[in-house]
Amino acid sequence: MSRLIRLLLAYDGTAYSGWQRQAQGESTVQATLEARLALICGHAVTLHGAGRTDAGVHALGMVAHFQTMVSHPLAAFSRGLNALLPPDIRILEAREAGPNFHSRFSACAKIYRYDFYTGQILPPTRRLYLGHIPGDFDVIPARAALALLLGSHDFLCFAHAPDLHEGGRGTVRTLYAATCEAMPDLPGGWSLRLKGDGFLRQSVRIMTGTIVEIGQGKRMVASIPAILAAKDRRLAGKTAPACGLFLEQVLYPEGV
Amino acid sequence: MSRLIRLLLAYDGTAYSGWQRQAQGESTVQATLEARLALICGHAVTLHGAGRTDAGVHALGMVAHFQTMVSHPLAAFSRGLNALLPPDIRILEAREAGPNFHSRFSACAKIYRYDFYTGQILPPTRRLYLGHIPGDFDVIPARAALALLLGSHDFLCFAHAPDLHEGGRGTVRTLYAATCEAMPDLPGGWSLRLKGDGFLRQSVRIMTGTIVEIGQGKRMVASIPAILAAKDRRLAGKTAPACGLFLEQVLYPEGV
Repeated sequence: MSRLIRLLLAYDGTAYSGWQRQAQGESTVQATLEARLALICGHAVTLHGAGRTDAGVHALGMVAHFQTMVSHPLAAFSRGLNALLPPDIRILEAREAGPNFHSRFSACAKIYRYDFYTGQILPPTRRLYLGHIPGDFDVIPARAALALLLGSHDFLCFAHAPDLHEGGRGTVRTLYAATCEAMPDLPGGWSLRLKGDGFLRQSVRIMTGTIVEIGQGKRMVASIPAILAAKDRRLAGKTAPACGLFLEQVLYPEGV
Repeated sequence: MSRLIRLLLAYDGTAYSGWQRQAQGESTVQATLEARLALICGHAVTLHGAGRTDAGVHALGMVAHFQTMVSHPLAAFSRGLNALLPPDIRILEAREAGPNFHSRFSACAKIYRYDFYTGQILPPTRRLYLGHIPGDFDVIPARAALALLLGSHDFLCFAHAPDLHEGGRGTVRTLYAATCEAMPDLPGGWSLRLKGDGFLRQSVRIMTGTIVEIGQGKRMVASIPAILAAKDRRLAGKTAPACGLFLEQVLYPEGV
């Protein structure tokens, strides 16, 4: 009998060329997982992720699913799979999914967190998990700018150009929540959290770069509506470094 | 004119065979710093650290000093040195030290922190900075056991045997403070902090291993006085992994 298995997983993206399997044989999270799953299942496995993360981006709660005919207990796909995986990828949970579940198409929202450091000297033991954007940072204008991003907009202006039209969904997305909080354990460290129904390629990093420029006084809060209206990537800020970005959570409707 | 320069520095110990320069040419923090300082000073430099850290141990506030005749501004030894160092070692501050200052002999206390995780699945993005000691952990007996370690004791029982008599100070040390707090951002994560006038080789890791066993119900609080009295390493707990240990701070008397 065919089963759909749904995995909740976390990974450190430092050593990987992103989530997605690549033709050239670069090390990716998807390919690493698929190779181990094939060993466990005894057949080739295609793992479908809820989204792609770029090289160096981390995940705390990625969701992925695959189909198999084997009757292994679920523990084979959690503890068993963890025993085969390198320690920078961990399965947090494996469960049976309903026949209509799809990690990507069933998702109703995603939460990304961007951690950045505004001090001059990046702490060595945090350097792989923080974007370093030095300079005095005022959170008040940054929060005002985030508020202007809430709701439904054409986010074309915050998207990495080459991938704009993938998937055919267009470029309008809805941002449900956007916060910026000081890190409790690192003065000068900030966490920016965005919850939306989807994000265009690199848009969290480009929005972060733009918001931080506003917090650093290099750009006005009022520039946000103008950037959105112009739909021109060149008007937005720099792309923040990949290593500060975490896919925190993928949300699904009840009962999927 | 001869100057003593005092450095405050942080490092990620993951890639290093510890602080201390080694004859075999392994990569160490001290050797890495000395090589860059020699470039800046134009002469060989011997860097004296406040203490040694073992392979894989991190530092947030190591102190070290060296002697030089060059008249460079202090920024040469902070920003200038950082420009030559790999990103896993950072100079936080450089200052002139008084002629009698010695990073090791002038120190009056050190603070070490040990971060450990008691959950089953080690978070991938924290794995290099946490000791993984899975199992239900009750902080109340752990704190009671820490209280029994306070004060002056012969800490022989918590020392790595081969190095017991180094430095000729004997094995009596004074523990001024010992706390164990839940990590605010990681359920199942705990930070154990020890402040003392000195620590024998590996003793923070052995004390941590012992205290965690008490918190996990594998050992009684009352075993602590017995271990101290017996002065026998074999009665204490396992040595906690190096990667959870951080040298947080080295303290000096006023005016040194």
